[in-house]
Amino acid sequence: MGERCRLRDLGVRIGPFPPGPWNAITDVAGVRVGQRSLIQGEGRLQPGRGPVRTGVTIVHPGEPDPYFERPSAGAFVLNGAGEMTGLSQLLEWGCLESPIGLTNTFSVPVVTEAILDYMLERHPSIGRETDVAIPVVAECDDSWLSDIAGRHLTQDLVREALESATNGPVEEGNVGAGTGTVTLGVKGGLGTSSRIVPDAADAGAFTVGVLVQSNFGRLMDLRLGGHPIGPWLAQRTGHHEHRKRDYGSIIAVLATDAPLGPHQLNRLAKRAGLGIARAGSYGAHASGELVVAFSTTTRFPRLQSERFVTVKQVHDAALDPLFRAAADATEEAVLNAICRAEAMSGANDHVVPALDLDAVREYLAAIRPPEIAPTS
Amino acid sequence: MGERCRLRDLGVRIGPFPPGPWNAITDVAGVRVGQRSLIQGEGRLQPGRGPVRTGVTIVHPGEPDPYFERPSAGAFVLNGAGEMTGLSQLLEWGCLESPIGLTNTFSVPVVTEAILDYMLERHPSIGRETDVAIPVVAECDDSWLSDIAGRHLTQDLVREALESATNGPVEEGNVGAGTGTVTLGVKGGLGTSSRIVPDAADAGAFTVGVLVQSNFGRLMDLRLGGHPIGPWLAQRTGHHEHRKRDYGSIIAVLATDAPLGPHQLNRLAKRAGLGIARAGSYGAHASGELVVAFSTTTRFPRLQSERFVTVKQVHDAALDPLFRAAADATEEAVLNAICRAEAMSGANDHVVPALDLDAVREYLAAIRPPEIAPTS
Amino acid sequence: MGERCRLRDLGVRIGPFPPGPWNAITDVAGVRVGQRSLIQGEGRLQPGRGPVRTGVTIVHPGEPDPYFERPSAGAFVLNGAGEMTGLSQLLEWGCLESPIGLTNTFSVPVVTEAILDYMLERHPSIGRETDVAIPVVAECDDSWLSDIAGRHLTQDLVREALESATNGPVEEGNVGAGTGTVTLGVKGGLGTSSRIVPDAADAGAFTVGVLVQSNFGRLMDLRLGGHPIGPWLAQRTGHHEHRKRDYGSIIAVLATDAPLGPHQLNRLAKRAGLGIARAGSYGAHASGELVVAFSTTTRFPRLQSERFVTVKQVHDAALDPLFRAAADATEEAVLNAICRAEAMSGANDHVVPALDLDAVREYLAAIRPPEIAPTS
Amino acid sequence: MGERCRLRDLGVRIGPFPPGPWNAITDVAGVRVGQRSLIQGEGRLQPGRGPVRTGVTIVHPGEPDPYFERPSAGAFVLNGAGEMTGLSQLLEWGCLESPIGLTNTFSVPVVTEAILDYMLERHPSIGRETDVAIPVVAECDDSWLSDIAGRHLTQDLVREALESATNGPVEEGNVGAGTGTVTLGVKGGLGTSSRIVPDAADAGAFTVGVLVQSNFGRLMDLRLGGHPIGPWLAQRTGHHEHRKRDYGSIIAVLATDAPLGPHQLNRLAKRAGLGIARAGSYGAHASGELVVAFSTTTRFPRLQSERFVTVKQVHDAALDPLFRAAADATEEAVLNAICRAEAMSGANDHVVPALDLDAVREYLAAIRPPEIAPTS
Repeated sequence: MGERCRLRDLGVRIGPFPPGPWNAITDVAGVRVGQRSLIQGEGRLQPGRGPVRTGVTIVHPGEPDPYFERPSAGAFVLNGAGEMTGLSQLLEWGCLESPIGLTNTFSVPVVTEAILDYMLERHPSIGRETDVAIPVVAECDDSWLSDIAGRHLTQDLVREALESATNGPVEEGNVGAGTGTVTLGVKGGLGTSSRIVPDAADAGAFTVGVLVQSNFGRLMDLRLGGHPIGPWLAQRTGHHEHRKRDYGSIIAVLATDAPLGPHQLNRLAKRAGLGIARAGSYGAHASGELVVAFSTTTRFPRLQSERFVTVKQVHDAALDPLFRAAADATEEAVLNAICRAEAMSGANDHVVPALDLDAVREYLAAIRPPEIAPTS
Repeated sequence: MGERCRLRDLGVRIGPFPPGPWNAITDVAGVRVGQRSLIQGEGRLQPGRGPVRTGVTIVHPGEPDPYFERPSAGAFVLNGAGEMTGLSQLLEWGCLESPIGLTNTFSVPVVTEAILDYMLERHPSIGRETDVAIPVVAECDDSWLSDIAGRHLTQDLVREALESATNGPVEEGNVGAGTGTVTLGVKGGLGTSSRIVPDAADAGAFTVGVLVQSNFGRLMDLRLGGHPIGPWLAQRTGHHEHRKRDYGSIIAVLATDAPLGPHQLNRLAKRAGLGIARAGSYGAHASGELVVAFSTTTRFPRLQSERFVTVKQVHDAALDPLFRAAADATEEAVLNAICRAEAMSGANDHVVPALDLDAVREYLAAIRPPEIAPTS
Repeated sequence: MGERCRLRDLGVRIGPFPPGPWNAITDVAGVRVGQRSLIQGEGRLQPGRGPVRTGVTIVHPGEPDPYFERPSAGAFVLNGAGEMTGLSQLLEWGCLESPIGLTNTFSVPVVTEAILDYMLERHPSIGRETDVAIPVVAECDDSWLSDIAGRHLTQDLVREALESATNGPVEEGNVGAGTGTVTLGVKGGLGTSSRIVPDAADAGAFTVGVLVQSNFGRLMDLRLGGHPIGPWLAQRTGHHEHRKRDYGSIIAVLATDAPLGPHQLNRLAKRAGLGIARAGSYGAHASGELVVAFSTTTRFPRLQSERFVTVKQVHDAALDPLFRAAADATEEAVLNAICRAEAMSGANDHVVPALDLDAVREYLAAIRPPEIAPTS
Repeated sequence: MGERCRLRDLGVRIGPFPPGPWNAITDVAGVRVGQRSLIQGEGRLQPGRGPVRTGVTIVHPGEPDPYFERPSAGAFVLNGAGEMTGLSQLLEWGCLESPIGLTNTFSVPVVTEAILDYMLERHPSIGRETDVAIPVVAECDDSWLSDIAGRHLTQDLVREALESATNGPVEEGNVGAGTGTVTLGVKGGLGTSSRIVPDAADAGAFTVGVLVQSNFGRLMDLRLGGHPIGPWLAQRTGHHEHRKRDYGSIIAVLATDAPLGPHQLNRLAKRAGLGIARAGSYGAHASGELVVAFSTTTRFPRLQSERFVTVKQVHDAALDPLFRAAADATEEAVLNAICRAEAMSGANDHVVPALDLDAVREYLAAIRPPEIAPTS
């Protein structure tokens, strides 16, 4: 099927806004991503031994340190059939206080432990002079390909992901928390995208970035740039669904440098849900679909030196481009995940094919809209 | 541009399930729809005099009477920038107790009064021996074409809609609560659709029906059967957006004969939101997008003759076809609204064009996916 | 039973903070209250004729005009079995845009119409150049004493309440929206209270004020200043419950001059719910208990002259005194309502006794805590 | 100060309903509780070494196994400043699938791991043939007395708590998850209570039981049986608050054998919040107050043998006694925790006094309501 590429390399554009330089969540200044994958063994599943197809992805909101200068944050539960720890506090206080971890369902505890260690080293006051911390860790079920019950991910590996988190391009596909995931009937994984939102008033542009751990749906539901290619592609490629039930999940992390209050970020997170829908999710019963969103520029200080904080935020009437960007970038991030992920075999010799990019190109070439005659 | 038609007449199919006989919310046995439109005057807006382009649509959940045998119900607020009265109680108690009214923003009180009169006549015990009632009435802002501040809708007209509510085909487009609405840059209005959800176990099929009052978005966002036709169509038809701001709203009413508990109906309502997203909404700041859902077969008796009620409900693991049907039918209902609505002029000589069906046909003809060679 | 008085006149103090000058919601600078009562007829209920025991209470958030300079706002649904129109939009946008109306369940439409008229007169741009408005109107069911189905309240009377809204002391008891309500088995009504929250840092004090329309519960549940006096009082006064079912409702309106963001005001509103609980509510199934909260000093401009708004808000770590004040003042407001309300007869010769203040004084005199010996 | 006792031993009664035989959550047939405490070291806090004052409490919903026969469940977030894992899924699906664990904030991961091990041993299909599981684990911050950052709790100890979970009386005070907690300025801990809800129709009684891990508030806020004893007690005992900030938390677990649907259990959980309020909480900013509720008799089978499930549930009009019981039992459980907990010293020689029961008795003796003359 040739080289993997990103959605944009297929000539597909979603929405009116351009992506940032990396077309990644790291286009939001300061945001860092670190990932570690764990791929071991082949063949029959032996709990505790493998095969293993999993990993961890860290999204760090960047400096100043989020524990003391907490990014304004919100969330949206599109379908709660999954887990995002720390969600109650994030919604109550309207801020994020830790790096965000993504992993498989049963590695949530080990990732939480590793993030706690990382935070406690930086801030020995935690749980003594200052509040305890509740990290935000979310998950997908990668058990189709991986020995999830074996809980192979180690604190060391998570620590490496934390320490190596960096700006710049983000690896996609079979990497980190997306290593063993399946999306829309083909190999899913990690995906990311961004949008630059122009400012009519020349006050400077904003960036909206998103990163997804994508693990939902069937090929028949795939909409690529909107086009309902799924059924055609299934027939064209002789696809059959491997996973009997429509389980899965998708976690989306939204970041922006636009100054937004917590209740605006709840709204922004909802728009990521709309992007997920447009890529093909109908929110299957067992598909946990959760979104967390934060602003890197609106920060709430933990320590109270002043009685007041002053929150600059975008006027409501100027939110629409940000809402649009969140939906568009999320849709593209999901599609990037499947465009980039390669076929993978795993537990019990389950094989998940990659998205057939040649077939996609064939489809896209055929459906070009008619030329519009120039008005004379 | 020729005759108006429905989406399906253009050859577009959404999702795997067939529609019911009317492809309308009235395919759900017992559900009745009644509508009245009010179209008066032309030219310059003179508050209190017109022009008027508005109306009312009633969705009646059918017999037995919903006040005493309350349909199990749920809701979802995709974007709360609008109004649905009775929502707090519906969510708290998990049931519907009145016909549902749809109208313009400022006619919510007159529709509420008319529904109260209707209920009080049938049940003189209300507010005396039995509880007061809080009707569910939702709205869109049709002020682009209509003198909304003039509040021209009368109780008599609402009463006519209530009394005339009937099974069978449902008028779409510029009718009832959709008379003056705008959707995706063209004339919107009332739309409806349904799906028959098969039962693998031969236990009988379910019907999911939806009716929308659609009033959101710009042409550039239109996705027709998924295809992102909007920008092409805008260029092809020399479209320019009339309404400066991206206000509007969409109200969706979901009905099903599947037995579902309240918390399952909250989930079903959310999937209607996904269908709205797929048709082109990104949930603009000022676009109130609200969904109410009810089951005609799961009913909670108001009066307590027994200590217990027994609720038959679909096993969670069998919900997916219903979720899919809710998303698909809602997407189609929105598109039916714009396929059926004719161009309309109204207040201040604002003109809203109809969706150019010829151009749509031209586009659809051009983007046929490639033939798939038969496997030999 | 002698003169009615307020809770404080009985020597009861709730919480550590002092009330404002009026011990009323109007202690929050700018907040105005207007009320009109409608008391007509005696004897047998004849729907449409009476007897009538109802009214309307308006809480106006004060200047600048809330439609253009929208007060930051939040809400809490303790028990949704009631109605507060405009709630979806208030929660979505985080602001209030109209005066707040309180009335009986079936007069919500007429109060909405009157508020709309009032707003449209001041702002003819509404629904034309600027957005439509969705007033916040909430209700209790006063049908035990009043011909609620008759809908006797007129727009003129509501208009009078709007026009007469004023600062200064607030009438309590059988007045306005509290005219026909019952609370904790005795005559309830309108109640109000306030707290001055000191500032340790000498940065100036804040005021938290609350107004309730109180209509819930049975005498056995009454806790007066916490003391569980209800069962004793019922026996002492030979009380029997008139209303068979434990229906009712309570609406609380919280105002503060502390600068708070929307998501902080959602939290503040929740604390009013705790005050309601402490006065004796257990949130009976049919008792709609809803709270709306706004800040007079944090305002969101409707029109966008700048891309950003700057929101000053109290540091989270300084919220506790405000939370405490909201709970304390709400508890006192409920108790003020029953201390001030006089016995009333109404529809079908139903008689609701007043709280027996002499018996209360007898109880309070008896339960003085022991003297604490001075430490030498 | 003499022997510790329970609230009821002081002669205080809350609400009209009697407790069950153990006045504990285990009065709900089948519900089991297991606890382990970890008390090590004295003196200066040395992270990783101690002192340790912590533990774990398990509430098991009883047979049949909750993974396959999932108890109907709901929840309420009174103040989200804390953590309850699994909450999103519990709310989405309306059921519980695991034993519930309570512990300190930083031991949530180890308790989760131990519950997973326990479940995987019983059900090796988890994460292979059947869904992954997301245990419900909640927490309080016991760092005033304990080296929370040291994470001393071991999987073995949690396992012991799981294996030893049993019916019958429940140890209260400084035990399990309550070992190191502080409540209302004095030593808090584990508390429990129950109510037997009679059935007017002789259809059999229901039991509502609650267990709390209580760790909130200051002495000035204590209301004992409603009586606002806190300020008096503080003066009487020369109390001063040790913890500077009003942090803490309370987790409440509600169980009932009444058949209730998920949305009814959400409502029941809210009433536990009202009981917490009545004992003295005003929901301080940093006090995470979360409630989970389940029914032992309404169960949702995980595996789908039938298309439908039939849910028997209490008629809404019969909910009030259950709501009342939930509030009353929760209030008593909090007070039981402080009545039973003994003074404790811990990290950095912090000393938390016990509630002075002698002083409480002195107060209660003084405030007896006046005798009511018999009516002749």
